[in-house]
Amino acid sequence: MIRIYGDSISGNCLKVKWVAERLGIEHEWVEIDIMKGETRTDAFLAINPFGQVPVVEFPNGKTLAQSNAIISYLADGSDLVPEDSFERAKVLEWQFWEQYSHETAIAVRRFQKHYEKKSDEEIDPHLMGKGRRALGRMELALLGNEWIAGGEAMTLADISLLAYTRLAHEGGFDVSEFPAVQAWIARCERELGLPHLHEVTDV
Amino acid sequence: MIRIYGDSISGNCLKVKWVAERLGIEHEWVEIDIMKGETRTDAFLAINPFGQVPVVEFPNGKTLAQSNAIISYLADGSDLVPEDSFERAKVLEWQFWEQYSHETAIAVRRFQKHYEKKSDEEIDPHLMGKGRRALGRMELALLGNEWIAGGEAMTLADISLLAYTRLAHEGGFDVSEFPAVQAWIARCERELGLPHLHEVTDV
Repeated sequence: MIRIYGDSISGNCLKVKWVAERLGIEHEWVEIDIMKGETRTDAFLAINPFGQVPVVEFPNGKTLAQSNAIISYLADGSDLVPEDSFERAKVLEWQFWEQYSHETAIAVRRFQKHYEKKSDEEIDPHLMGKGRRALGRMELALLGNEWIAGGEAMTLADISLLAYTRLAHEGGFDVSEFPAVQAWIARCERELGLPHLHEVTDV
Repeated sequence: MIRIYGDSISGNCLKVKWVAERLGIEHEWVEIDIMKGETRTDAFLAINPFGQVPVVEFPNGKTLAQSNAIISYLADGSDLVPEDSFERAKVLEWQFWEQYSHETAIAVRRFQKHYEKKSDEEIDPHLMGKGRRALGRMELALLGNEWIAGGEAMTLADISLLAYTRLAHEGGFDVSEFPAVQAWIARCERELGLPHLHEVTDV
């Protein structure tokens, strides 16, 4: 059985949980509270010298960090990863973009607003524009496509992007401005058996 | 023949060039000047709606963005990618970490200092500490290992991390504080046939 160290409020950690559940991978969830500094203890740094969650520990003692690397490994050969090499690269394209251009605005603003309780004035004003551009880029990709990487079925790219897009309202983003994104959130939630976080009028 | 759109001053773009050269992939390099706004023109956005370099255009008209997704695709099945699934995941772990925790400090500080000519006082003071922590994390991984992902041969993880680590001095970082990193830079340069950018006393 694998052990997932994660913080339940972290979208990055939820990606790993969703993939493990979807694929029926037996796992133990070990809750790590980032805000209490539990990723900075000596015990945790021995498991992950990067000092970040999620990290997965395998029965042979090996560990793997970085949400998108973990889910790529867990889902290798499953229907969440396209067989075609170019389509697999497109999934990676979205996942790298997610970590660089999406998470860094939407997850960061959500953390500061929702958990650190910062006022809009205390938050870097660039985060709103950067996050809205990211949602706009997703809207463009989802016009006429059911899934973000453009194929016929949900892939890891959808799971990676769902994690924080689904929580964007907690960062002050109005997802209803992006109707194709909003419909896609509901589609992913149905596919993964998650509760609907948003009211959806047109799916 | 593939077409690589890139800016020669961007480490992210050089990753693609190095992998194409290493693997003998015929390519045309199209220079895109980020500082002149050439990633924001309508013509460029038609090629890459993300508005970022590098992006590769294939003979069939398809395009692929995100440096690490591109090199994963180009190197698929080559000796730059481990055959073992877990080792491949370890390469991805380093690549995602590079984009999230390394590039965002070292490449950003280098761009502001070296190209935007900002003084140390004008640069976000957190970038120096974050970048030094990233170099320290690499030092830890390279103590007793020739290659960053821990295997017997250079992988894409080395190429991804070399891109900006090799240029860290332009961001005001003193790489000689990290001797295993400095020796690894020279090792990668030899392997890729690149000129040595740093004096090395102990390789």
